[in-house]
Amino acid sequence: MMEADASSVKRDEPPAKVTKFRNVMSINNSDSEEDIHAIIVNNSEDSNLLSSVRRRVQISSEKVRTGSLNVLSAKYESLDYDTCENHLLLDEERKKGYKFIVRKSISRWFIFLLIGMFTALIACIIDISIEELSTIKYASLSKNVDKYVTQGKLYIPYGLWVLYNVVPVLIGSLLVAYGEPIAAGSGIPQVKCYLNGVKIPRVVRIKTLVVKSIGVICSVVGGLAGGKEGPMIHSGAVVAAGISQGKTSTFKKDFNVFKFFREDHEKRDFVSGGAAAGVSAAFGAPVGGVLFSLEEGTSFWNQSLTWRTFFASVVSTFTLNVVLSAYHGVPGNLNYPGLLNLGKFDGFTYEFFELPIFLVMGAFGGLCGALWNHINYKITVFRMRYLRLRWLKVIEACIVAAVSATVGFLMMFLINDCKPFGQDPTKYPTQLYCEDGQYNVLASIWFQTPEASVRSLFHDPANTHNAVSLTSFVIIYFFLAVWTFGLSTSNGLFIPTLLTGAAWGRLVSIGIFNVFPNTAIVHPGKYALIGAAAQLGGVVRMTISLTVIIMETTGNITFALPLIITLIAAKWTGDYFNEGIYDILIQLWGIPLLPWEPPPLVYNIYASEVMSHPVVTLKCVENVGHIVELLKLTTYNGFPVVDPPLTDQSEVTTYGRIRGLILRSQLIVILKRKIFNETSDDWDNINVSIFRNEYPRYPTIEDLFIADVEKTYSIDLRPFMNPSPYTVLHSSSLPRMFRLFRGLGLRHLPIVNDSNEVVGMVTRKDLARYRIWSHRGHIGVEELLISKEI
Amino acid sequence: MMEADASSVKRDEPPAKVTKFRNVMSINNSDSEEDIHAIIVNNSEDSNLLSSVRRRVQISSEKVRTGSLNVLSAKYESLDYDTCENHLLLDEERKKGYKFIVRKSISRWFIFLLIGMFTALIACIIDISIEELSTIKYASLSKNVDKYVTQGKLYIPYGLWVLYNVVPVLIGSLLVAYGEPIAAGSGIPQVKCYLNGVKIPRVVRIKTLVVKSIGVICSVVGGLAGGKEGPMIHSGAVVAAGISQGKTSTFKKDFNVFKFFREDHEKRDFVSGGAAAGVSAAFGAPVGGVLFSLEEGTSFWNQSLTWRTFFASVVSTFTLNVVLSAYHGVPGNLNYPGLLNLGKFDGFTYEFFELPIFLVMGAFGGLCGALWNHINYKITVFRMRYLRLRWLKVIEACIVAAVSATVGFLMMFLINDCKPFGQDPTKYPTQLYCEDGQYNVLASIWFQTPEASVRSLFHDPANTHNAVSLTSFVIIYFFLAVWTFGLSTSNGLFIPTLLTGAAWGRLVSIGIFNVFPNTAIVHPGKYALIGAAAQLGGVVRMTISLTVIIMETTGNITFALPLIITLIAAKWTGDYFNEGIYDILIQLWGIPLLPWEPPPLVYNIYASEVMSHPVVTLKCVENVGHIVELLKLTTYNGFPVVDPPLTDQSEVTTYGRIRGLILRSQLIVILKRKIFNETSDDWDNINVSIFRNEYPRYPTIEDLFIADVEKTYSIDLRPFMNPSPYTVLHSSSLPRMFRLFRGLGLRHLPIVNDSNEVVGMVTRKDLARYRIWSHRGHIGVEELLISKEI
Repeated sequence: MMEADASSVKRDEPPAKVTKFRNVMSINNSDSEEDIHAIIVNNSEDSNLLSSVRRRVQISSEKVRTGSLNVLSAKYESLDYDTCENHLLLDEERKKGYKFIVRKSISRWFIFLLIGMFTALIACIIDISIEELSTIKYASLSKNVDKYVTQGKLYIPYGLWVLYNVVPVLIGSLLVAYGEPIAAGSGIPQVKCYLNGVKIPRVVRIKTLVVKSIGVICSVVGGLAGGKEGPMIHSGAVVAAGISQGKTSTFKKDFNVFKFFREDHEKRDFVSGGAAAGVSAAFGAPVGGVLFSLEEGTSFWNQSLTWRTFFASVVSTFTLNVVLSAYHGVPGNLNYPGLLNLGKFDGFTYEFFELPIFLVMGAFGGLCGALWNHINYKITVFRMRYLRLRWLKVIEACIVAAVSATVGFLMMFLINDCKPFGQDPTKYPTQLYCEDGQYNVLASIWFQTPEASVRSLFHDPANTHNAVSLTSFVIIYFFLAVWTFGLSTSNGLFIPTLLTGAAWGRLVSIGIFNVFPNTAIVHPGKYALIGAAAQLGGVVRMTISLTVIIMETTGNITFALPLIITLIAAKWTGDYFNEGIYDILIQLWGIPLLPWEPPPLVYNIYASEVMSHPVVTLKCVENVGHIVELLKLTTYNGFPVVDPPLTDQSEVTTYGRIRGLILRSQLIVILKRKIFNETSDDWDNINVSIFRNEYPRYPTIEDLFIADVEKTYSIDLRPFMNPSPYTVLHSSSLPRMFRLFRGLGLRHLPIVNDSNEVVGMVTRKDLARYRIWSHRGHIGVEELLISKEI
Repeated sequence: MMEADASSVKRDEPPAKVTKFRNVMSINNSDSEEDIHAIIVNNSEDSNLLSSVRRRVQISSEKVRTGSLNVLSAKYESLDYDTCENHLLLDEERKKGYKFIVRKSISRWFIFLLIGMFTALIACIIDISIEELSTIKYASLSKNVDKYVTQGKLYIPYGLWVLYNVVPVLIGSLLVAYGEPIAAGSGIPQVKCYLNGVKIPRVVRIKTLVVKSIGVICSVVGGLAGGKEGPMIHSGAVVAAGISQGKTSTFKKDFNVFKFFREDHEKRDFVSGGAAAGVSAAFGAPVGGVLFSLEEGTSFWNQSLTWRTFFASVVSTFTLNVVLSAYHGVPGNLNYPGLLNLGKFDGFTYEFFELPIFLVMGAFGGLCGALWNHINYKITVFRMRYLRLRWLKVIEACIVAAVSATVGFLMMFLINDCKPFGQDPTKYPTQLYCEDGQYNVLASIWFQTPEASVRSLFHDPANTHNAVSLTSFVIIYFFLAVWTFGLSTSNGLFIPTLLTGAAWGRLVSIGIFNVFPNTAIVHPGKYALIGAAAQLGGVVRMTISLTVIIMETTGNITFALPLIITLIAAKWTGDYFNEGIYDILIQLWGIPLLPWEPPPLVYNIYASEVMSHPVVTLKCVENVGHIVELLKLTTYNGFPVVDPPLTDQSEVTTYGRIRGLILRSQLIVILKRKIFNETSDDWDNINVSIFRNEYPRYPTIEDLFIADVEKTYSIDLRPFMNPSPYTVLHSSSLPRMFRLFRGLGLRHLPIVNDSNEVVGMVTRKDLARYRIWSHRGHIGVEELLISKEI
């Protein structure tokens, strides 16, 4: 172990007595920047003194295998939540005064109003399209089954079903694969990363919204085991980003409104409101929406943002209910139970003795969820490795669509579960092989959208389904759902997961009823609800927001306690095995998400080990040619501005003293506007808006033409740079940097030495790389690889 | 206006062209630290160029008048949420390894479990005591009224009522005034400040809990217009602080458990869980509890803390329901509607056209609330100025108790509102002057706890109350409640405010019914609920958490949207006039609460103007006598540790370069343990626990005996100090410091110059002093006074 405590670079040596405090474990980072280390803390019996082992992996020599969970992708940049308090901003504040603050505040509320309304309207379009198209599809299928079953030509309705499934899925997956691949899946992990401060390219663009909306209609109508809820949340986020910026890059249109919100900081606040409005529209759960934003998404939070988010959520639910009540023919009746996605849960109660049952069901849901996540992880890795071509993805989606139809058909063909009419209010009673006056139960589950199936399982009377149908349905739907999630189509996992859980929840109630036949209170709907919550909780590992969402979407508050118990049990059980599916995906994609807290056991890792160095710096007044060269040669996004190192007789320094920080985007704009000391005297027109006009997609350095004579000019960076960026000493610990970074949403953290000279730079990936790691009883801190390949 | 831009101290002068960016408004802070400035931004028509006026007030010459809203008290210190990452901590981490992390995590969950349970048990004791004592009291009163009314001796029951009121209130107020004055009132503002990071002396001590619990029983039984909910929230906070520390100062007992949680950071997390558990126990609202902690209290938030808080809330509701269901004779029946404080709201719906009515009611509630807050503010100021003696406070409480009985008696005596039996399930039907078979409605409102009255107003059938009774009740109760809040007794304002609102809500329903007699759906209970929410929202200005709390405590989710609309309208209307009552109180007390965001228009205020200077610093190895002198002479709580200023030929500096930060408490412990370089060689026993053992009440420097010879010794501060405190440059703006302070929960922020030499220190009060300020159309930034007198 090396004695390389960062504080040893300081001047006084401590007296001998205290040196024992300085045996901190440390890593020499000097030989190669590409070295990857893992500190393995020996956790065995005699762990009183720490034995440290070092692994070194050369990225350059070893190809990173896709699907590994311990690699960060190099391609993700941070958003910049720190306000650049340069002179231009002060100038704006001084000129515009308090009225501007008030105007901004009113605009903010107005934008949140719009976000709520538009998110709900998009949700309505999706809802109504799915409803109408599904009605046509399933009515036709039901009719055809009964028409051809007597003729023995069941292959005709089967073929029709496959066709009805494959065609919409084909359209949807073509759109996604060739139009906008980021629109695949639920979009929740992407939104989560965005809110965490990672710039996910194209995630909040209008094109993504269009593809996502059409895609989700196609995939749900196409009968995939997917839901529309995740995509609605993503839609809300896009709507928020679009409206708040007052311009669209997709349509190259700038409305010249809300310009003062054109910065990462403001945009993120709106996106968190949009995500909440999306949840609110998807489930009719305004409080749940706020909590979702809090629990899953938002990294920075404050009271007034919470209130605005809440406002957007309420507007969203309200708009949705007004439109949908009109669609259902009861305009203005906001109490109409049909507005609750999962149906109104009324009159159910629970008994004390049922709580342990719910606890066990929660734990079982956690197990199932962990299994689900593991299988989906394996499938996703397979896809990342072998299904990289677009047409392969489209074909896979179509195969899943066909398989969905096939298994559904086989189930209703093979399991002859018949019930008399009238017992269950099914929409398309299909007789199939049943006697007259009866209908096939499985057909009625399959011949509707998954959401309607969840409603059926929640609200159908007891004895509607028999154990064999349910068991086969659980098994088949479990695998269908796990296969479907991650296809190149837009669909979420909430509804299929709820459906799987509701089905096994009903099975549990049948089991209990068989053991205790006199237990009148065991209503199968209640167990379906608990099972659904357990399964979903096991997959996504949310507790508070899910509790509230389920309460709001079923209109029942009595079940708060059972739901909470179930969800906590599911989360704890699931967490024992793996992480929630969203976190697994985020790790697979190598996105440098910063968790809430720094990992444990890293107090002994210092800034000097973590930072990138040497740092490329600029002088306060810098030569244009040098800047252009720098921007072309490097990919850095932030440059410390320093005084040139002193070279007089008394003190020779290698590093410059920090004066500020300037971003690549700012340099680009300055170059584009040609604000050179030698030529520009139009200072009156130089204000913050020149930067806002270009936000968020700045030109690249290659797009700019800088004449040779201009390269001899100079730029004064001081009015533009951030004059007092947060910095830390090279002897700061990793948790200290982490909290600063996380708490303030930084993108660049210059590291300075004792004399305030810049010796390094820390960015998000340098911090996200450290993770607690467990291997064969050894628990320690792992440094993730950073790869350009994923 | 002065050209005193802080960046001008830097070395290069910018070229002439950019100087226009540097005309930032600035204040010369050099002449006297006591100067108070206010920058008034002229907001008139030609405000393009800012005219700045400066006020100066000398604290020394002008006596601060009690009750002013723009003074900060000097007596409040910050809590310290920043981890001191000294060598002792690293040592602990290295020695104990990952097992210790796991153990801490499990302990944390276990403590949250205990917090939930104990908070609920205390709530049960309070609940049941109030229930039992009130039953005796009101049964006796009801009986006596009917006994003596025929004899014309109504003065006997009146006298009895006064006695029944005054005696408990006397006990309660004596306890509070002489026992623990901090236990007065609801405790919510104090808990809010604690969670914000202000050390409120004695607020989380066991003695406070005992006085609060007995006090709240006394004041509710004593018939004051106060509720038990606020005190329950405070109780939860105390329980959390007590359990998590594993020791009590009141009883001088150290259980030697959970020592690793003995720091401000951990304690605050537990207290936020305790507050949530308190809400949860008070209202049976676990989700509402979490949201309350979020909306009102907690300043720092993360996911795992949210989950633990949620867990504590759930445990609390569960425990409460188990105990109370047993008390109500239905053990284990957790669905028992009697467990809902405000009664189960079932079967009510609302129509579209009612939403505007709710909106108007919300706005009216906001108005009433603002009026309530204003009157209470005036009363509080009066109390602060003239009712400073303890016995005066006790007498005031007794007078209010007597007046409460008197007005109640007069109302039922003067307004002869009779209803036939059986229509309303009143507990003690009092006949008074009514005919046989009828009872006096007002007596049935008054002869019960305010909580039971709220239940009556929510659930009594239409026509139970007539307009005259309700009007007089609203007016009288409004003033009673506003007078009661702030007495030297333990009681909150939730229930009396709800009661006032419920009464005028019923009045609204009567009005609507008179205008549209055919409107069958106007159920008075619904309007009572909306009125109650509006009034409470107007007083406390919470939205999200109140929505959820009311939903959970009435067991009804259908009303989410109407409640939300009402509460938002109430908040917006009220905010136009003044702040929520808790914030008004916090300002009156001069507590330096840091808001969520820095005030606007302060980008041009720099660290160099805000900071305290000169700073008292210590050397890395410091003389004991010097330290003792410093601690005796100053009241500072943190000292930067610096290298001594260089005095060689090349560079003469006045300030020392920063090496770390050490706290007064750490110095005290070092001195107490006599860890001197010259004598101590027992390094093996020096670890973090020596500091934890003393936490949170360290001895003062006067308590320590340091021999004269010891004063010649020296202490090496490096193993103990925080080696890399967050620092900012003197040229940093106020918002930048504010965000750092707020985001990371700092207590001290050393300000450094370009060479990393400490030139000043910023603490909480330096930042909390700046506030946006409006006066006769001028809007600007105000600097609050800091006074030692309040």
